[in-house]
Amino acid sequence: MVRSIFLRGFDQQIADMIGDHMEEHGVKFYRGWVPTEIIKLEEGTPPRLLVKAKESDGDETLEVEVNTVLLAIGRDPCTGTLNLDSAGVKISAKSGKILTTDNDQTTTPNIYAIGDVAEGRPELTPVAIHAGNLLAKRLFDGSTTLTDYTKIPTTVFTPMEYGCIGMSEEDAIAKYGGDDIEVYHTNHQALEAALPKRDENKAYCKLVCVKSEKERVVGFHYLGPNAGEVTQGFAVAIKLGATKNDFDSTIGIHPTTAETLTTLNITKSSGASSTKTGC
Amino acid sequence: MVRSIFLRGFDQQIADMIGDHMEEHGVKFYRGWVPTEIIKLEEGTPPRLLVKAKESDGDETLEVEVNTVLLAIGRDPCTGTLNLDSAGVKISAKSGKILTTDNDQTTTPNIYAIGDVAEGRPELTPVAIHAGNLLAKRLFDGSTTLTDYTKIPTTVFTPMEYGCIGMSEEDAIAKYGGDDIEVYHTNHQALEAALPKRDENKAYCKLVCVKSEKERVVGFHYLGPNAGEVTQGFAVAIKLGATKNDFDSTIGIHPTTAETLTTLNITKSSGASSTKTGC
Ligand SMILES: Cc1cc2nc3c(=O)[nH]c(=O)nc-3n(C[C@H](O)[C@H](O)[C@H](O)COP(=O)(O)OP(=O)(O)OC[C@H]3O[C@@H](n4cnc5c(N)ncnc54)[C@H](O)[C@@H]3O)c2cc1C
Ligand SMILES: Cc1cc2nc3c(=O)[nH]c(=O)nc-3n(C[C@H](O)[C@H](O)[C@H](O)COP(=O)(O)OP(=O)(O)OC[C@H]3O[C@@H](n4cnc5c(N)ncnc54)[C@H](O)[C@@H]3O)c2cc1C
Repeated sequence: MVRSIFLRGFDQQIADMIGDHMEEHGVKFYRGWVPTEIIKLEEGTPPRLLVKAKESDGDETLEVEVNTVLLAIGRDPCTGTLNLDSAGVKISAKSGKILTTDNDQTTTPNIYAIGDVAEGRPELTPVAIHAGNLLAKRLFDGSTTLTDYTKIPTTVFTPMEYGCIGMSEEDAIAKYGGDDIEVYHTNHQALEAALPKRDENKAYCKLVCVKSEKERVVGFHYLGPNAGEVTQGFAVAIKLGATKNDFDSTIGIHPTTAETLTTLNITKSSGASSTKTGC
Repeated sequence: MVRSIFLRGFDQQIADMIGDHMEEHGVKFYRGWVPTEIIKLEEGTPPRLLVKAKESDGDETLEVEVNTVLLAIGRDPCTGTLNLDSAGVKISAKSGKILTTDNDQTTTPNIYAIGDVAEGRPELTPVAIHAGNLLAKRLFDGSTTLTDYTKIPTTVFTPMEYGCIGMSEEDAIAKYGGDDIEVYHTNHQALEAALPKRDENKAYCKLVCVKSEKERVVGFHYLGPNAGEVTQGFAVAIKLGATKNDFDSTIGIHPTTAETLTTLNITKSSGASSTKTGC
């Protein structure tokens, strides 16, 4: 059951590809529905559960009987009972998260907040660790280095994994204008999927580039196996301002799926097919 | 049977770790031996084979009976019958490979040689493809871009995979001097090996850095699963001159094995243990 869109904040072309891939492999989605009640019908291992739901944007209702319910609905910060008010620490009325500056200071300058509890920070383990390390160095070791919360690489561990760095295609177009964005992309297939002829051409990657900045790569998107392992190294390159040409002039490692990123030559604007044939 | 050292030209610390790992998993090596004769003892599927061998640096001999012989002894270029002499194209007397310039020209300027047949070029598919693309562009498209044969990433697909970019530790020390080299390293374990408690702390990675160049990374070495996928992206970063600090300031993707490269803080010179505990 999906309230509205898949993977809000992520590139929506890729988010829909992930959804399509899961549907092809047997996952049935109710899109535009939200659960309203879960009732245990009978004991047992597993028990039977009745899920009641209603349309997100309407009044229709439905009921489904299932064995198991998995919720992936995000989490709330436990700031409500901390009496933050009396310390002058402000929270966001909407999210309950603590408001901070670039320096991770709260509205009370000698109180800091990092990690998931801070408003607007990506909810990721290495982000919290990184911010903690740098804050400790600033407070106790004379450092002035701030945590750079942009270009954070991340991976969505869906059945077809999705690694990304930087902006979605739609965000890049909103920021730079469609005329200044070029997207290089290709479908492809991992070697390990070739022999069993599984998921042919279902892997995909694209680089979102700013034309007026020598095609600097502002968005990296990789859909396929081992996405986290593939994406990590490119994050160092993109932090260094890598352009499309830097990707092209790097020699591939064969056979890998990651090498696909070094030979992208189909632009979206050309309208040419991104389907790949052969090894 | 290994004539002399493992993986000549590669970082020898890692080469020996690969050998040790294979030995622990049941591969028996004869180090310092070369086969001299293979005799089929009897027909059958598979036939029995007698392998005769002698010491590389001595006169001892031995005989082993086996089912299967796999040879990984490199290959020779088929330049002998091409009558290259009469075209003025010189080959290396030792390797039989064609001598070329940075521009991929042979000793006859309008004849070019790329790929495995050219002397001193890494024998890798993407290198041959890359060189071919750039040569075609130089010859027919007005380009002046040469193939950069340094910092080529590659992967050895041993049971514990090995990805590397740039110099081995020993080559870096030879070039820059031991005092100007700092090595950051760690043992680690891939998540997928943690649950079955397999190969604990057997994965390993190190960055070889030049101190006087802001710890620019001149050697990247990763021993562990998915080495090709992990290594590819870092190759773009290293081509861009990435320093140790660029690795450190990149946020990791959790859980991956590649994220280990963003949090290396143990130097070899400190003598501290590189054994990692916990997740
Ligand atoms: C199911 C799930 C899967 C996830 N998977 C990933 C993943 O694959 N990769 C990834 O990078 N991130 C993942 N995350 C996100 C990651 O767990 C968080 O980003 C990370 O833990 C944030 O660290 P933190 O220190 O900010 O907060 P937390 O780890 O939540 O630590 C906050 C601590 O404060 C304690 N606490 C709360 N109130 C009080 C109080 N009043 N007094 C004292 N202590 C208190 C809590 O008990 C908790 O121990 C996942 C999260 C969830 C829920
Ligand atoms: C077993 C093995 C595994 C390998 N695994 C990998 C790997 O995992 N990753 C990787 O990157 N590289 C790998 N390689 C290396 C890779 O195959 C080579 O680097 C690559 O093929 C070199 O391309 P090339 O065009 O230079 O030469 P080749 O691919 O060898 O092409 C040369 C061609 O010339 C033809 N030829 C020769 N003489 C004549 C003649 N007189 N007239 C006409 N044609 C002629 C040959 O038949 C051949 O087709 C592997 C090599 C081997 C042998």
